[in-house]
Amino acid sequence: VVSIDLNADMGESYGAWRLGDDAELCRVVTSANIACGFHAGDPLTLLTTCRSAVAEGVAIGAQVGYPDLLGFGRRFIDIAPDELTAAVLYQIGALVGMAKSSGGRVRYVKPHGALYNRAAVDEVQARAVVEAVRSFDDSLPIVGLAGSILLREAATAGLRGVPEAFVDRAYHPDGQLVSRRSAGALIADPTEAADRAEQMVLQRTAPATDGSNLMMVAESLCVHGDSPGAVAMAHAVAERLVSRGVTLRAFTES
Amino acid sequence: VVSIDLNADMGESYGAWRLGDDAELCRVVTSANIACGFHAGDPLTLLTTCRSAVAEGVAIGAQVGYPDLLGFGRRFIDIAPDELTAAVLYQIGALVGMAKSSGGRVRYVKPHGALYNRAAVDEVQARAVVEAVRSFDDSLPIVGLAGSILLREAATAGLRGVPEAFVDRAYHPDGQLVSRRSAGALIADPTEAADRAEQMVLQRTAPATDGSNLMMVAESLCVHGDSPGAVAMAHAVAERLVSRGVTLRAFTES
Amino acid sequence: VVSIDLNADMGESYGAWRLGDDAELCRVVTSANIACGFHAGDPLTLLTTCRSAVAEGVAIGAQVGYPDLLGFGRRFIDIAPDELTAAVLYQIGALVGMAKSSGGRVRYVKPHGALYNRAAVDEVQARAVVEAVRSFDDSLPIVGLAGSILLREAATAGLRGVPEAFVDRAYHPDGQLVSRRSAGALIADPTEAADRAEQMVLQRTAPATDGSNLMMVAESLCVHGDSPGAVAMAHAVAERLVSRGVTLRAFTES
Amino acid sequence: VVSIDLNADMGESYGAWRLGDDAELCRVVTSANIACGFHAGDPLTLLTTCRSAVAEGVAIGAQVGYPDLLGFGRRFIDIAPDELTAAVLYQIGALVGMAKSSGGRVRYVKPHGALYNRAAVDEVQARAVVEAVRSFDDSLPIVGLAGSILLREAATAGLRGVPEAFVDRAYHPDGQLVSRRSAGALIADPTEAADRAEQMVLQRTAPATDGSNLMMVAESLCVHGDSPGAVAMAHAVAERLVSRGVTLRAFTES
Repeated sequence: VVSIDLNADMGESYGAWRLGDDAELCRVVTSANIACGFHAGDPLTLLTTCRSAVAEGVAIGAQVGYPDLLGFGRRFIDIAPDELTAAVLYQIGALVGMAKSSGGRVRYVKPHGALYNRAAVDEVQARAVVEAVRSFDDSLPIVGLAGSILLREAATAGLRGVPEAFVDRAYHPDGQLVSRRSAGALIADPTEAADRAEQMVLQRTAPATDGSNLMMVAESLCVHGDSPGAVAMAHAVAERLVSRGVTLRAFTES
Repeated sequence: VVSIDLNADMGESYGAWRLGDDAELCRVVTSANIACGFHAGDPLTLLTTCRSAVAEGVAIGAQVGYPDLLGFGRRFIDIAPDELTAAVLYQIGALVGMAKSSGGRVRYVKPHGALYNRAAVDEVQARAVVEAVRSFDDSLPIVGLAGSILLREAATAGLRGVPEAFVDRAYHPDGQLVSRRSAGALIADPTEAADRAEQMVLQRTAPATDGSNLMMVAESLCVHGDSPGAVAMAHAVAERLVSRGVTLRAFTES
Repeated sequence: VVSIDLNADMGESYGAWRLGDDAELCRVVTSANIACGFHAGDPLTLLTTCRSAVAEGVAIGAQVGYPDLLGFGRRFIDIAPDELTAAVLYQIGALVGMAKSSGGRVRYVKPHGALYNRAAVDEVQARAVVEAVRSFDDSLPIVGLAGSILLREAATAGLRGVPEAFVDRAYHPDGQLVSRRSAGALIADPTEAADRAEQMVLQRTAPATDGSNLMMVAESLCVHGDSPGAVAMAHAVAERLVSRGVTLRAFTES
Repeated sequence: VVSIDLNADMGESYGAWRLGDDAELCRVVTSANIACGFHAGDPLTLLTTCRSAVAEGVAIGAQVGYPDLLGFGRRFIDIAPDELTAAVLYQIGALVGMAKSSGGRVRYVKPHGALYNRAAVDEVQARAVVEAVRSFDDSLPIVGLAGSILLREAATAGLRGVPEAFVDRAYHPDGQLVSRRSAGALIADPTEAADRAEQMVLQRTAPATDGSNLMMVAESLCVHGDSPGAVAMAHAVAERLVSRGVTLRAFTES
């Protein structure tokens, strides 16, 4: 039986500003990347989202980012490695507090936005992230871009690295994501996303911008939660996979 | 044998701004109230301070505050109870991350500044703080003003409340602290502080502003760490107490 | 000919978080209370909103608030008067930069949220706000609750105070607003808001929670911009008033 | 008669955290680069520093930076050009409010820290800064590194660019500053700083790390204000220059 994890970003509201529909997404996905307050997420939002995840049996992950609410963590910040390690530790711990109070626990760590992209290619920042996770709990897996430096560094440090693929983002032929600032970077059509998800899971490839197919060995598929159609897209992907006989299951159960 | 705990605020630097001498204070006190990033303390400062505390065998406490770097947590904020509970949980967790990574653990919680003062007299905010601690780990003690509502609410919830006294702050006859905004609120002379500490521990009283002596049953004495003479004062207090046969020991060891 | 000003809050988005439809609101109202970055509003949002206001001929006001993005400026903060004066000055200046760059200028100042409510009843905070405006430009009017301490203090300092009424908020019989935390505080029905607006302008009264009518002498009517139906409500109010022969005109033109 | 401007960074305290001695520095320098709240400087600090500058007849400049209190503006942030323009405008305006309230006005703009370094070499960020100044007031000069892209872009936009040299920073042979993270980047000895200042003004050269002398045509000399010996160094530089017959005068007077 083929199984796959579906993960989505959650907990990204902040005070009076609402973003995403966490309660609804928790009914579809198997893993919740919950913001930790640095790029998004006020404490009460994190707590509420952790409770939803526990209630729905969804695995909780700490989505750690740069300290940049204004930029939603999508702007590279040239932060020194020891400061980055401390910033990641701080965020993991904060979410641990929320998860524990909710009767759950943090099961993995995933970098967000610009930190995700940078740690995919930059050894220094990748190691700083890995060091934070390792020093906190070396049984925590790190989710990252399939083929990234981050996953290589995780492995080097003896941590489990979990490769993921994006059902709603375009890929360059070398496996890098097309930048959000470029046209065609985002896939908004639920059917197209479902097609891609099916290809990723069953054929273990993904279409690249030049028409070729990349090899794509992923243990988790990411659907984004911050667009208006996010829930519909997650449902379309989930239903397609289930209809093809795929079991949706958190990678932390594998 | 009489023993007492000496606690001091630490981890209150922020980025380029330095405050206090944590490494030096860790050599004198038995408990470190480490800021958690809301009123002071950047992640790297917290991590470094946790490491110092672990190295010196000092008990680590989470000093939780209002989200107010600009006001150093010394301004009352009318925050709703569920948001306050979440904010306290977030801070406790963040410091747990730092402590765990440093080979230690968070042993108690102490509110800071305006939250400390408010939770001493306001049942709603006191309960919100207690609820955060209880839902995270009901074996964690809460340090508060001797005779405060906070300690009463901690007891009601089945938590250990630890009453403390301030060697460097003036007291009203009713046991409330004189506001920092008032003249005479702060005691700067190390000898006077040592005198007060000796009276507090050996006679279990404290001098009030009207010349009377308050009953003062404290399990911990607080010396502040953010003034230029903080380290000298802490040394003076410690030496005096030891010279009178008092053992300095973290209250978490009692 | 009877004329009245319609004002609405704008510029309240922050980074990735969108709130309100400033471009659309600018087509209806005559005065724009633009956030200044302390309770809401990132710099690019403020600049874009200033440009919309200039393009539509809407008067720009600086909506100054407490430094509290997380609480959207709706939580009282016990800030010292000299710090409050400086905080208000900072915000006015910041918006002056945006307005000037957009070819417009700041025409008035209006406190937001908890600062608005506090300055309506607290002489110390009211004076701190007035002092900021006076020391910056004593020809700038201050908009406040009709009958408030803020308007009295503005007059005492020789500034123009502009009383306003809220078409979508319930009033106590003494003229204070019903707290947002209470049921029935907010009026969401456009027709009811239009009824109230008509009564306020033509009869110079407003209905109170006990069924009585308050005297309500207002130079401006506020319609909020941060609810889903805000634009529809503003249109309903504007159309009703125009249909009754009322001219909509910025109070700064009077 | 040879004259030169001496500028120093000021207004860099934040809440309870004190940095630099603005009142004392204002007695030595002729231009004050006052922080604007993004990398440092709370509103009351800015207001107080503006008042000191006005009282001492020192020219006020807006020292604009990245939005990064934690990093003190010393970390590059990959901010989009329109957001950077808005951020610079916001900061200029905020300081204009403080200066006007103090009876002075903002006379120039100088980027801080990582923005200073980036705008010296990056055309996109340089243009974004220049566009903010130009759209606000095209008579405001911009201070930058001698020979930098920033000054070239200022000239292209029709603005006055003011080249400056650092008396307390080491230079590479190509005129770039040695990074603060490198050994030998900072000059702490007042006599050495005075020697360098004298050479810069009278010979119009500066010593480079390879022993050569760079051509260095500067209209202003920068002495930093955030180190313990800053005031002593500023005095040493000022006294040396005066003793050599150089007049200290704000470049805005030239």
